[in-house]
Amino acid sequence: MAKRLSEDAQGVYTISATPFDDTGLIDYKSVDSLVDFYINKNIAGLTILGMMGEATKMSVEETEIFMTYMMKRVNGRVPVVVGVSDPGTNNLVLVAKSSMDAGAAGVMIAPVSGLRTDDAIYNYFEQIFEALGTGIPVCYQDYPQSTNVFISSNCFNRLVRDFDQLVMFKHEDCPGLGKLSSIRNAPNKDDTLRRISILVGNGGIYLPEELSRGADGAMTGFAFPEMLVEVINFHKAGKITEAEDLFDLYTPVVCYEQQIGYGLAARKEILRRRGAIANSATRAPGPKLSAFDHEEISHILTRLENRLREVGR
Amino acid sequence: MAKRLSEDAQGVYTISATPFDDTGLIDYKSVDSLVDFYINKNIAGLTILGMMGEATKMSVEETEIFMTYMMKRVNGRVPVVVGVSDPGTNNLVLVAKSSMDAGAAGVMIAPVSGLRTDDAIYNYFEQIFEALGTGIPVCYQDYPQSTNVFISSNCFNRLVRDFDQLVMFKHEDCPGLGKLSSIRNAPNKDDTLRRISILVGNGGIYLPEELSRGADGAMTGFAFPEMLVEVINFHKAGKITEAEDLFDLYTPVVCYEQQIGYGLAARKEILRRRGAIANSATRAPGPKLSAFDHEEISHILTRLENRLREVGR
Amino acid sequence: MAKRLSEDAQGVYTISATPFDDTGLIDYKSVDSLVDFYINKNIAGLTILGMMGEATKMSVEETEIFMTYMMKRVNGRVPVVVGVSDPGTNNLVLVAKSSMDAGAAGVMIAPVSGLRTDDAIYNYFEQIFEALGTGIPVCYQDYPQSTNVFISSNCFNRLVRDFDQLVMFKHEDCPGLGKLSSIRNAPNKDDTLRRISILVGNGGIYLPEELSRGADGAMTGFAFPEMLVEVINFHKAGKITEAEDLFDLYTPVVCYEQQIGYGLAARKEILRRRGAIANSATRAPGPKLSAFDHEEISHILTRLENRLREVGR
Amino acid sequence: MAKRLSEDAQGVYTISATPFDDTGLIDYKSVDSLVDFYINKNIAGLTILGMMGEATKMSVEETEIFMTYMMKRVNGRVPVVVGVSDPGTNNLVLVAKSSMDAGAAGVMIAPVSGLRTDDAIYNYFEQIFEALGTGIPVCYQDYPQSTNVFISSNCFNRLVRDFDQLVMFKHEDCPGLGKLSSIRNAPNKDDTLRRISILVGNGGIYLPEELSRGADGAMTGFAFPEMLVEVINFHKAGKITEAEDLFDLYTPVVCYEQQIGYGLAARKEILRRRGAIANSATRAPGPKLSAFDHEEISHILTRLENRLREVGR
Repeated sequence: MAKRLSEDAQGVYTISATPFDDTGLIDYKSVDSLVDFYINKNIAGLTILGMMGEATKMSVEETEIFMTYMMKRVNGRVPVVVGVSDPGTNNLVLVAKSSMDAGAAGVMIAPVSGLRTDDAIYNYFEQIFEALGTGIPVCYQDYPQSTNVFISSNCFNRLVRDFDQLVMFKHEDCPGLGKLSSIRNAPNKDDTLRRISILVGNGGIYLPEELSRGADGAMTGFAFPEMLVEVINFHKAGKITEAEDLFDLYTPVVCYEQQIGYGLAARKEILRRRGAIANSATRAPGPKLSAFDHEEISHILTRLENRLREVGR
Repeated sequence: MAKRLSEDAQGVYTISATPFDDTGLIDYKSVDSLVDFYINKNIAGLTILGMMGEATKMSVEETEIFMTYMMKRVNGRVPVVVGVSDPGTNNLVLVAKSSMDAGAAGVMIAPVSGLRTDDAIYNYFEQIFEALGTGIPVCYQDYPQSTNVFISSNCFNRLVRDFDQLVMFKHEDCPGLGKLSSIRNAPNKDDTLRRISILVGNGGIYLPEELSRGADGAMTGFAFPEMLVEVINFHKAGKITEAEDLFDLYTPVVCYEQQIGYGLAARKEILRRRGAIANSATRAPGPKLSAFDHEEISHILTRLENRLREVGR
Repeated sequence: MAKRLSEDAQGVYTISATPFDDTGLIDYKSVDSLVDFYINKNIAGLTILGMMGEATKMSVEETEIFMTYMMKRVNGRVPVVVGVSDPGTNNLVLVAKSSMDAGAAGVMIAPVSGLRTDDAIYNYFEQIFEALGTGIPVCYQDYPQSTNVFISSNCFNRLVRDFDQLVMFKHEDCPGLGKLSSIRNAPNKDDTLRRISILVGNGGIYLPEELSRGADGAMTGFAFPEMLVEVINFHKAGKITEAEDLFDLYTPVVCYEQQIGYGLAARKEILRRRGAIANSATRAPGPKLSAFDHEEISHILTRLENRLREVGR
Repeated sequence: MAKRLSEDAQGVYTISATPFDDTGLIDYKSVDSLVDFYINKNIAGLTILGMMGEATKMSVEETEIFMTYMMKRVNGRVPVVVGVSDPGTNNLVLVAKSSMDAGAAGVMIAPVSGLRTDDAIYNYFEQIFEALGTGIPVCYQDYPQSTNVFISSNCFNRLVRDFDQLVMFKHEDCPGLGKLSSIRNAPNKDDTLRRISILVGNGGIYLPEELSRGADGAMTGFAFPEMLVEVINFHKAGKITEAEDLFDLYTPVVCYEQQIGYGLAARKEILRRRGAIANSATRAPGPKLSAFDHEEISHILTRLENRLREVGR
């Protein structure tokens, strides 16, 4: 049985792409190669059916088959977190339970859009946690650029205090360095506030700063997860300069993939070129790469190779 | 076989609520009574699985069973339009086709969120129309308060010119009286612009003005559809004053139901009190009525009864 | 010296339009007639330089001259509240102080856009209140449709507890009936929560319900302020039915003016027809009325006259 | 007399910060040193009173004095573009004319918020251009993240065709690489489309890619303008690799300053450390740097210094 997601989680949880073939169907051969690609890069875990996984463009049947298939392919080698955000609480709970039954380590939930105040957010999650029960570990996905829901650090810590199953904060508010510090360094009178795991998103663009502010790792789909892994390892070992030196080699690619929308198409193309998937197609409606975009990606990858060669990597 | 939705559509297309029981499951006995309630009010058609129908809170299995059940209960007495908007084009097309197979008269589509310019909207619908084929009549749902997608009247009319399957405009931009006029009165050189059906939403709050500006009817879930039916009939018969006299009796209720979010809970409660459904529950996350809300609804309905009695209705 | 704005404020505070002439300049003769028009309708106070007053389209010189002129014309007959919201705290404080020096009864402040959580809103107003000092009575303008800032009732009441100069809540969140009740009926342990004045906006569209939920009056620019005055008086006298009977005669006009943006042009045209101002022009960029719009306004006013005649008013 | 802004503009137009002292007043000694700092870095022009310049937090008197002072200090050494965006057309035109009278080379205008379609944007600028007359060169500021107004490349090029005074596109939509290409490479039948200047914003984060796609330079406030200048010069000389090598040394700082809101405080602090201004205060409401933020900035500047030393710069 898979390890449950807990407050101790650290390292890289890669948000998996969903590979499609030319006809738009899920390409299961590429699922195999993609899972192996990720795991070979020494990631700590996988996150599936997140926004980057094009989950909202898949039918429910596909989602179920895909999730089960993924679990089998991963086969317990790393824990798998399943994105279960849903406009309806019923659906959310159903999918969360079936994900756990299928072997998930935990679920990731973003607040439903339309929540306007801390009180509204708290009430929503209270309802969710009651419906889920205490047995399902939960990661809070804080991605207001997409949800338009803004939680204060006070409100988040109130949720941590009141619900033991909340074990992880997916930090993706941007700019959000101050918020990360504020959550990590909250006053903890009488030791009532558990230290939860904080993994960062946004393609890792502020990973070095975020690690210094107390993040435990990254949960993002950056196409070179091995860099994130190594940066985090350096950091944990106190080798801050080595971490930054390595990170900075990749920043042009990090920035390039960080273009919302377009970045997903670019990222899948980079994964294709790295042999992780056979086809970089995204489902409609979604960005398509022009001939110029392809050249630009070639150029930016060459730029990376040159940087790596210069430092003898 | 059901009549196809066409440019000639007029009258009231009621957007159906979805009745749930206390445990949150679909209450099929109430579906029966609700369908009969609507049809007995002489509506021209039904729209299901719209935003008001809480479609996004239902699982796909429920959606399919519900749609099929609805079609059987309606049994061709009125045409049924099915809301099929979806973040993914694949899903949208699948559901549209299965809806038509199940006997729908046409489908209603709102643009996917994130479309920012007329060109982007046009390209999206071009792709949708190509994927759907010419055999499926389409109603464009223009509800920017929810989608954050704003189409110009020029762009909409360009779609009308280029795609014959686009037969209806669900008008719900607000304020939108000028837009309605602009679409209806667009220059029509060489007679290349079909006159499509325009049905209005927003609970019918501007129905008298909109009929005078060329609307053909209403597509909304107002809990007294018989009023909308009669107002439209008066208007078609040139009895403008009678139409307005009748409409004005109901404006407090129209305004009351027009409170976004809360209004759905109020509307279902009014439908319950009218005997159309057995239970006014909405699915979580959704508004719950307080004791005070219930009293307020009682009061507003008494206010309506008094008005009706005063004029001898 | 003018009466200071206090927690006791009730009745109608009309938000004044700003009259312009054909060349776009402020028409001071119309300012005279407009002020007299309002005061003759027995309003309790005036609010100037609000969003409806097109304040953001006026130069600072104009604003100062206009404010001073207004104060002189009002000449202490009713208290005047001045809208002083500003992206910069310095400017806000300067204008607030000069408004009070010119004879304002208090100032109205909406939170600056970009505040995302209760904590951020509280901190912003704490800073404002400290800069203003305790001598300037403040009305909190809660208009999230325009500011995109959402305050919880808890956070608002925390501000009431901590800052004595906060004496009024301009209620314009919509739907917002539950919020109004929640603020009015907040638990008041140890009697630490002052009862502040609540005046409602949104053109008064939910005025009867809001009065029943504890509102003290309306602050809005509806072109028939005498109706609002009388409805509130009826309500205070316990004549709920009379209040609603009167209100319902005007709902078509209330709804018509409630069209955001366009409604301002319509409202100024109605004020013109009522002889309150000489010219209904709004400053660019702003809506312009078409020939059809003018006819529609004529029609809606005739509809009102007929209603009033029917009941012998 | 100053050179007028034209389609030929290229290089770096630095968006100037506005330096304040501890009491919140404009620090004119720092204005002197800042202007000299910028010009000594070989910038091509200056832009003042943009969003980054905290213009909306300054009073009108301050704005006028500041603008005049700036012009005198610059003294024709480089062209100065003045941001004149305003909710009111009257004000916009007044400030634009007084800016030109004071010696500005041109004005920068962002569309007023609330414009929802290409047609609405076109009409707004048509009105502006008519009010301004043909003698004032205009830069269109395309910054939808702030304005929520999205122009299509087709609509922008239509404006270019119809209004000769439109000479520059400030490109800040993000992601926006495709849009830049689409504007630059628009079909130009019968040679009716002038080639206008495109300067990029967003802190220059995609400058290398944007130059390859046809941008002429950057208009941004990055605290190391000399890097942008040199990158652009390398690029113009065909030395793409040198351009990228240099740019990549600074990407951590570019990304760091690119944090919306917070980034302004960081940027002013970096300018202070570089000796350009005496005080890094921003006006309220605005971000304040914590002790940790200061350390982080020290660290990121050390990281830059190390990178520069490694390559012998």
